[in-house]
Amino acid sequence: MKTSGVLTARGFTGAAIHCGIKTASKKPDLAVIFSETPASVAAVFTKNKVCAAPVRLSRRNVRNGRAQAIVVNSGNANACTGRHGMRDAAEMAKLAAHRLGVPAGDVLVASTGIIGHLLPVWLIAHGLDEITGRVKRDAKTDMLVAEAICTTDTFPKRCSTTATLGGKTVTIGGIAKGAGMIEPNMATMLCFLTTDAAIPPQLLQSALAGAVNGSFNKITVDGHTSTNDTVAILANGRAGNKRITPKSTDYRKFAATLGAVAIELAQMIVRDGEGATKFVEITVRGAKSEADADKIARSIANSPLVKCALNGCDPNWGRIVSAAGYAGAAFIESKAELRIGDIRIFANGLPIKADKKALARVMRKKEIVIDLHCKVGTSAATIWTCDLSHDYVTINAEYHT
Amino acid sequence: MKTSGVLTARGFTGAAIHCGIKTASKKPDLAVIFSETPASVAAVFTKNKVCAAPVRLSRRNVRNGRAQAIVVNSGNANACTGRHGMRDAAEMAKLAAHRLGVPAGDVLVASTGIIGHLLPVWLIAHGLDEITGRVKRDAKTDMLVAEAICTTDTFPKRCSTTATLGGKTVTIGGIAKGAGMIEPNMATMLCFLTTDAAIPPQLLQSALAGAVNGSFNKITVDGHTSTNDTVAILANGRAGNKRITPKSTDYRKFAATLGAVAIELAQMIVRDGEGATKFVEITVRGAKSEADADKIARSIANSPLVKCALNGCDPNWGRIVSAAGYAGAAFIESKAELRIGDIRIFANGLPIKADKKALARVMRKKEIVIDLHCKVGTSAATIWTCDLSHDYVTINAEYHT
Repeated sequence: MKTSGVLTARGFTGAAIHCGIKTASKKPDLAVIFSETPASVAAVFTKNKVCAAPVRLSRRNVRNGRAQAIVVNSGNANACTGRHGMRDAAEMAKLAAHRLGVPAGDVLVASTGIIGHLLPVWLIAHGLDEITGRVKRDAKTDMLVAEAICTTDTFPKRCSTTATLGGKTVTIGGIAKGAGMIEPNMATMLCFLTTDAAIPPQLLQSALAGAVNGSFNKITVDGHTSTNDTVAILANGRAGNKRITPKSTDYRKFAATLGAVAIELAQMIVRDGEGATKFVEITVRGAKSEADADKIARSIANSPLVKCALNGCDPNWGRIVSAAGYAGAAFIESKAELRIGDIRIFANGLPIKADKKALARVMRKKEIVIDLHCKVGTSAATIWTCDLSHDYVTINAEYHT
Repeated sequence: MKTSGVLTARGFTGAAIHCGIKTASKKPDLAVIFSETPASVAAVFTKNKVCAAPVRLSRRNVRNGRAQAIVVNSGNANACTGRHGMRDAAEMAKLAAHRLGVPAGDVLVASTGIIGHLLPVWLIAHGLDEITGRVKRDAKTDMLVAEAICTTDTFPKRCSTTATLGGKTVTIGGIAKGAGMIEPNMATMLCFLTTDAAIPPQLLQSALAGAVNGSFNKITVDGHTSTNDTVAILANGRAGNKRITPKSTDYRKFAATLGAVAIELAQMIVRDGEGATKFVEITVRGAKSEADADKIARSIANSPLVKCALNGCDPNWGRIVSAAGYAGAAFIESKAELRIGDIRIFANGLPIKADKKALARVMRKKEIVIDLHCKVGTSAATIWTCDLSHDYVTINAEYHT
C-alpha cells in the first residue's frame, strides 16, 4: 500500500485552498477532485435520519451512475440548515460545475465541520474561482487535497494500491477524514476514492458497498453516527482495462483491492480517533450468527468502561465479558474464552491466572487484539476501535457550538 | 421524603461492619438487614447473561415469596467465579441464616465490587459472628448499612416515606448504591427496600417491577449493564394495615409510594455517577411509540459526544439532534423541536438564535433538562443521566483488576 491518495489513479486532477471557512487555523478547507473524463460513480451515505444538505444532493447526483467532480469543504457541515442549506449545497455544485465545465448533476458535494451554521457560499465561490483554473496531478496537491477535508484529525489519511486486471495495471487511491462521531453505519467521515479502472456504475456500487461494509462499518470511536458521512468513488476507465463484468475474476480482484484500500483508510481513522492512544481490534468468534458476533464486538467496543480500562493499560476482562453479556446476543459465560494479545485470560466461566508481566507488556502496546471465542456457534466478526482518554473529554467538552 | 433508609419501617433491624474485604479503605463492607418476622419478598435482577453467583442464589431464594434477611458485602462482586462462587454465595447465606436463626432459603445474598476474585468467605464468617448478635434499629446503624454497600459512591444513598393505607401509616425506606456500570435494565446497582406494609409477595413483585421500570431502568451513567444488579424489597406487615389486595386503592397508593422512593434513589445514583458534575433529565415527547421515545432518549443519554458537551456547558444541540437521528426510531429532522431548560434552540430543521447569556446560564446549572418534541406521535419517555468528565476517565482508567 502506498501513501499517495486520490490523485494517484490516471486522469484525476485536483486542487485545494484555504478559502476562509476555518477562520482560526488557516488550514486548507476547500478541495476539488476532478476526473478529466466522465467517470462511473458509486457512493454510500450516512444512515442517520438527520442528514446534511450535501448528502441529500449527492445522493441525487450519483443516481445516474455518472460524475466527474467532487467538491468538498471542511469547517462547516451544512447540516441542520433547512431549505437554505439545500440551496447552498446546490449552489456549491453549480459553481464548481460551471468553472470546471461539466454539468452540475455530475458534481458531488460534501461538507464536514460544525453543524447548524449556514455555509459561507461566497467564500467557497471565491475559493473555487482561484483553484478550478489550476487543477493538477502532483504529490503536493495530492497531500493538500487530503488535508483540506480534515477537521479534528491529527494527520491526513491517504493510501493507494494497484491490481492487474487482464494485463493492465489498475490503480485505486483514496483519502479519508475521521476523528469524532465515528460509529457503525458510517461516521463523520468522508472518504473519496478514485480509480482508473473501467467498471460500470452498478458494479462499482456493489464493490463499494462490500468494501464499506468490511471497513468503515466495522469501526467505532464513540458510537455516534454522524449526519454527513459519505464514501464516494469515481472510476474513469483510463487504465484501459477491459470493462469489468459481473462475477468475473476481474471483479473479484477489483473488489478485493478496493476492500483493502478501504480497510487501510478506516483503520487510519481509528488510529486517529479523538484522543486515541491505542488501536484495538476486537474479534468475536464462535457466535451463533454473524449478527450476534457483530453485536457482541460492538458492545465491547462501545463500552466506556472497557475503553477507559484500555486507556489505563488494565486487562479488565470482567468489563469485556460483562459487555458481551448485555449485548443482546446468545452468550454463555461458562463456555466463553477470552484472549488479550495471545494470552488466555478467561475460560470456563473463570479468570485464568496469567503471567502478570507478559500481560502488562501486552497491555502497554499501541495495538491491542481482543479475541473472544463464544463457543456457541461458528460465526465471527471483527470491529476496530480505540480507547477513551482524557483528551477525548477535553476535545469534546471544549469544542463549542 | 426523609433521609433515613432501610431501618425506617417497623420491625426491621440491621448491622454493618468492616470485615476486611475492602483492604485499602477500612470502610464498612458487610451488612445485614433483618426482619423480626418473616416477610413477603420481591426482587428484580440484572438481565446481563453474565450474572454473579449471589444473583443466581437470590433469584432462587425469592421464588417462594418469603424472606427474612438480606446479607450483602461490598469490595468483591463474586461474579465470574464459577461453581466455587456459587458455593461461596450459598455459604454466606447459610452462615447468616444460622446466626440469625432463620432458614437459609429465607436469606437473600448480594455482592458488589471487583469481578473475578473468589469471595473471602472466612472474613465474612468472622464479620457475621460479630454483627449478627447485635442487630438493631437506630439512626447510626441505618447510615452504616447504607455505607456498607457502597463502592466508588461518594455518598450513601438513603430515603424513606410514608403512605396512609386504610387509616394505617405504612413506611417504605430504601438504600442504593451505584456509581459505575449504570445502565438500562439495571445497573451495578444494589437497592434494598423495606416496608412494614402487609402485602402478598405476588403483588409486591408487581409493584416492585413497576417501580423499577419507572426509576432504575430509566437511568444511565455509562451504558454498561452490570453482572450483579439487584433490587429487593421485604414487606413484613408490621404496620397493621389490611393486607393489600390487587387493583385496590391501597395497592395503587402503595405502588405509587414505592415508585417515588425508587425514583428518589435512582436519581441519587445518577447524581453520584462516576465523575458526574451534572444531573441531566432527557424527555422525548411526541414520539411514535413509547419504545421509540425511550430509544431516542437513551441514544442521546449514552452519546459520549453529548455527555462531553454537557460537561463543557456547551449547548451542542447538533449532537443531541444527530443522536436522535441514529436511534433507530421514527424521527423527522424538520418536525422536531428541542429545548434546553426552557430555551427553544432547534425547530423546523433549523437552529434558533437563542439569547446567548440565558443559554449560558442554563448550561452552567447543576441540573439540566433536555426536552425533545418529535411531533410524529403522542408517546413520551424520560431518561436520567449525567455528563462525561475527566474524572470518569481517571476513575475507570486507574481502577485496576
